[in-house]
Amino acid sequence: MMSRRGAVLGALIAAILSSAYAGSEGKDEGVREAQAAIEAANAKFSEAFARGDGKALAAMYTSDAIVFPPDSEMIRGNEAIGEFWKATRQSGVQSALLTTDDVGRSGDVAYEAGKVTLTIQPAGKEPTKAAAKYVVVWKRQPDGSWKLHRDIWNSLPAKK
Amino acid sequence: MMSRRGAVLGALIAAILSSAYAGSEGKDEGVREAQAAIEAANAKFSEAFARGDGKALAAMYTSDAIVFPPDSEMIRGNEAIGEFWKATRQSGVQSALLTTDDVGRSGDVAYEAGKVTLTIQPAGKEPTKAAAKYVVVWKRQPDGSWKLHRDIWNSLPAKK
Repeated sequence: MMSRRGAVLGALIAAILSSAYAGSEGKDEGVREAQAAIEAANAKFSEAFARGDGKALAAMYTSDAIVFPPDSEMIRGNEAIGEFWKATRQSGVQSALLTTDDVGRSGDVAYEAGKVTLTIQPAGKEPTKAAAKYVVVWKRQPDGSWKLHRDIWNSLPAKK
Repeated sequence: MMSRRGAVLGALIAAILSSAYAGSEGKDEGVREAQAAIEAANAKFSEAFARGDGKALAAMYTSDAIVFPPDSEMIRGNEAIGEFWKATRQSGVQSALLTTDDVGRSGDVAYEAGKVTLTIQPAGKEPTKAAAKYVVVWKRQPDGSWKLHRDIWNSLPAKK
């Protein structure tokens, strides 16, 4: 009796552990995959931004993406967004370095929170730094790549 | 022969149409359901905000929610977020009216873009209005309700 009860209990515990493990493993794997793709895309974004490549930046957004710059109306559509970033680069923002804080995911949608450090140097001036925090909603494409779909940020407090 | 071929073709077309219909219908239904829940939650948010009910506001966020106020560090956790909104109300922001622009959804995650109109009246001053745009990531709870999980906004251009 004892050994049978022990065996049933053992099987039950094994089933619970394995399903809990499979559950968290499955979730983590999907999030990890999205986060790796997002961090790689962010590195590409920074490179394209530094060289003022509006077309490459536009191609990183979904066709119906929306960007929400502070003190501005929403900018809709990836072509307008590419132009916006190109104009931002030309205004004297030399670089935009992105650091991912955390990523969540459900199916083909992921959301990322992070920080961006800008180096700003208009012609003939000294460079300054500015920092902002952001949330990006990413959408997985049929080919497995991830594109920015909603992109919003605002300022962090100025460093004292 | 013709009639058999016609019947096969008819069945094929019916199958294609019905699966396309079911697909778009299924998607629209899920988004509509999320949008209705989000708009109802936003109305509740505005009411709780107007009465300065930090606890009710905290309960609308996930326990690991993050709010991203402009010129501020991130605020993490629904209790700190409730306190933040209560303090905002006490500082003289009388009301916050939310208007949903669009909603997308994948499984238990939805993302909303919209605008908020604030009525600001510190003690002894004339009321002024301010407008902002926002993105909120919502998370469906096991009981079917939706809670705010990421909440970020920034200013719209001042009205001329």
